[in-house]
Amino acid sequence: MNFKAVLRSLGILLICEAITMIPSLIISIVHAGVDTPAFLYTIFLAIVIGVVFSSVTPKVSNIYARDGFAIVALGWALVSLFGALPFVISGTIPSFVDSFFESCSGFSTTGSSILSDVEALPMGILFWRSFTHWIGAMGIIVLTLAILPSVGAGSLHIMKAESPGPNPGKLVPKVDQTAKILYSIYVAITAILILLLYITGMPLFDSVLNALGTVGTGGFAIKNTSIGAYNNVYAEMIITIFMIIGGGNFALYYALIKGNFKDVFKDEELRLYLGIIAASILLIAINIYGVNFDSIGESLRHSSFQVASIITTTGFATTNYDKWPLFSKMLLLFLMFVGGCAGSTAGSIKTIRILLLFKTAKRELMKIIHPRAFYTVKLRNKTIEEKTLMEILTFFFMYMMIIAVAILILSFDDMDIPTTISAVISSIGNVGPGIGLVGPMGNYGAFSDLSKITLSICMILGRLEIYPILLLVVPSFWKKVNI
Amino acid sequence: MNFKAVLRSLGILLICEAITMIPSLIISIVHAGVDTPAFLYTIFLAIVIGVVFSSVTPKVSNIYARDGFAIVALGWALVSLFGALPFVISGTIPSFVDSFFESCSGFSTTGSSILSDVEALPMGILFWRSFTHWIGAMGIIVLTLAILPSVGAGSLHIMKAESPGPNPGKLVPKVDQTAKILYSIYVAITAILILLLYITGMPLFDSVLNALGTVGTGGFAIKNTSIGAYNNVYAEMIITIFMIIGGGNFALYYALIKGNFKDVFKDEELRLYLGIIAASILLIAINIYGVNFDSIGESLRHSSFQVASIITTTGFATTNYDKWPLFSKMLLLFLMFVGGCAGSTAGSIKTIRILLLFKTAKRELMKIIHPRAFYTVKLRNKTIEEKTLMEILTFFFMYMMIIAVAILILSFDDMDIPTTISAVISSIGNVGPGIGLVGPMGNYGAFSDLSKITLSICMILGRLEIYPILLLVVPSFWKKVNI
Repeated sequence: MNFKAVLRSLGILLICEAITMIPSLIISIVHAGVDTPAFLYTIFLAIVIGVVFSSVTPKVSNIYARDGFAIVALGWALVSLFGALPFVISGTIPSFVDSFFESCSGFSTTGSSILSDVEALPMGILFWRSFTHWIGAMGIIVLTLAILPSVGAGSLHIMKAESPGPNPGKLVPKVDQTAKILYSIYVAITAILILLLYITGMPLFDSVLNALGTVGTGGFAIKNTSIGAYNNVYAEMIITIFMIIGGGNFALYYALIKGNFKDVFKDEELRLYLGIIAASILLIAINIYGVNFDSIGESLRHSSFQVASIITTTGFATTNYDKWPLFSKMLLLFLMFVGGCAGSTAGSIKTIRILLLFKTAKRELMKIIHPRAFYTVKLRNKTIEEKTLMEILTFFFMYMMIIAVAILILSFDDMDIPTTISAVISSIGNVGPGIGLVGPMGNYGAFSDLSKITLSICMILGRLEIYPILLLVVPSFWKKVNI
Repeated sequence: MNFKAVLRSLGILLICEAITMIPSLIISIVHAGVDTPAFLYTIFLAIVIGVVFSSVTPKVSNIYARDGFAIVALGWALVSLFGALPFVISGTIPSFVDSFFESCSGFSTTGSSILSDVEALPMGILFWRSFTHWIGAMGIIVLTLAILPSVGAGSLHIMKAESPGPNPGKLVPKVDQTAKILYSIYVAITAILILLLYITGMPLFDSVLNALGTVGTGGFAIKNTSIGAYNNVYAEMIITIFMIIGGGNFALYYALIKGNFKDVFKDEELRLYLGIIAASILLIAINIYGVNFDSIGESLRHSSFQVASIITTTGFATTNYDKWPLFSKMLLLFLMFVGGCAGSTAGSIKTIRILLLFKTAKRELMKIIHPRAFYTVKLRNKTIEEKTLMEILTFFFMYMMIIAVAILILSFDDMDIPTTISAVISSIGNVGPGIGLVGPMGNYGAFSDLSKITLSICMILGRLEIYPILLLVVPSFWKKVNI
């Protein structure tokens, strides 16, 4: 482990976080909010510690896979910790654990909250919450790569460790260029959404914050009844579409810009992703029609919004789906395991892994029928290496084991089973709402501190796709390697 | 597919099933029960159809892996179907779906029931229920192999397809000899248990039936409050120990007889199995002490019985654990995924798979830390083939997917979430009781016919470890191969 290089990177990261707080500071000053000092203190502290850390000079500047994982894991913990400070210092969320939960929920794009009254928050804090989604979604470290001159030879390792999906590639040969392209697409999509929401009649401030939460597939609501509060069917439709866009592979959008339409339409992951969305919308609409809504139009409106919100792991709501029939609720709960596409801002297992898991399962069955034949698993006409399949299968197992352990820890709170189980599934999947007490109209305030910390760790585990955080507890991960 | 050979095997199987009904018939005649005609009709029908089927002469007698799977899958469906007839014809369970559920639950050693008053059943029927556990546990087809002259070259394929565990081996070179040894150990253990229970003061009939349900890790109770009805602490302790024996690898018992003590004590799977049991007993005892029971002795008594009952997938109960704190309930629910050892009478994923899954997960983490090193997964000092690891990982994924699909189907009944989820987990794990309405003092009677059939299929899927049944729906499985 190249400790000095890791420390240096963490310092740069902290300075970057301080910079990302400036918009929130400006908003709080403009609105003369009580939160202005909180932002000032936090920015000051982050810059001081950031400068100290980043002044460390490593003997060798090379960063290996292991260092990349350490930077990402520790970086996310540090960023979440400092992200919690404005909440604590301003007194809007007095408990530090609650603030840390809210900060982890923001950066990991989960969007679950311990607050029962969001509307009481000052503007600067409200903006900061939604902005953490937006930077957390694309990766704060990728952001660092995009705006700073190349950090060195190890930047691909860092990007790989932070970016979702089993095999994040580079769009162009240079990593920092790739990061810039991704962020440009991201900014453009966000800007378009802000404009569209504003046109539907949503106030500008709300348009901006909801856009940040939508494209980042975060889901922090700025109204107590989430998007349902606006009762604006056009805004709902636009948000539905943009959540689905946020859950799509951004590399495909680059391909679209480059004119490679064929590649996009033939993409197996995209097809499965859209197929699951369409099928789920239909099934749920049929299930809730006549039970919760009298018209097929209303059923489709809410089922499409909710399916898009859950599968993209956003977590916005237009209605209390906790009152829907069990089939709809269970289907939504299972969609929390799917998530969006690789290379999207969505969390959870990701459609590409689900696709490859099913392909591998089919292959195992074929191997029994024809024991002497040789079968490979193909995706996009390319044979997937056995090593990659093994990684994905193991990922699935680890994902389920983490859920099991977290459920056991949460169960000490003795809440009801749907609340306990769905809180964990929703947190590790970076979704936000669950079922029961943590349903779309509920919040996570009732859990104990131990449970809140467990769920916070689940959120970061989910956002970073398990490995970086798990590695932290493997002793040999920390051993010094002579280079 | 060698259809004629499959048909012939199914015929032999039906005749065998008719023979296994004779003890129940005798008991019903002795007690002058209303169920005597039901057994006579069923035996007659099974023999007639069995003789017709078995008179088919296949052109070639060779049985390949595929045929073995077909015999096992169709055989189990057929045996469960005929096993249901005594319930329907005697009128003790008027609904055919209910009877089929009860029969599947018996043969698969699940032990869940749709009956609310078991004590009202006639003696012959009561015996038949418990006896289906006993023959289903070791495998009715293995039984056929043990008592009939060798069926031919394919008997190993059949035994492999029916026997639990990822790699069932032969104890001695000949398959029918292996089957005979296994059944001899099985009979001996059962006989010892009957004697011990009888000594504690349990009536002989009850001792026999409870022994069948214990060693077979089945769990059909013959009292409405299960084993708790006897309030006999010695019987409980004996049953606890014998459930754990039933969930152990029978090949190890053969090694013990042969004097290979060292192999047994060093067995990694056995150690993990006993370790999980000990840890779970302790954790639950601490959790329920002071809440459900005032003395540490009572807490240990019920926690040890319940842990042994659940992890061995037996499903007996001495108390209503549904009233325990959430932590204990969730831990029991997770133990339902573990199951006993490979080569035992227990169901579920099996300890050996859990062990290898964790070893593989650890290996994947090590591969990230040292990307250039080569790691293998070892068990009992032998390197496990990558192919086998892939099979086990895929098995885990399929297991979870079947649970998800079954939960979605059951959710149309709109029951509460704990009931719905635990019913499926318990059924595919061949456990029996779950949580909520299907808790240890509840039953499965409230579900719709669709749900009961779904759960019945889950039980057989679990008992046969998924593949044989899943293959039935793969079209190319049925294609004729020219030999």
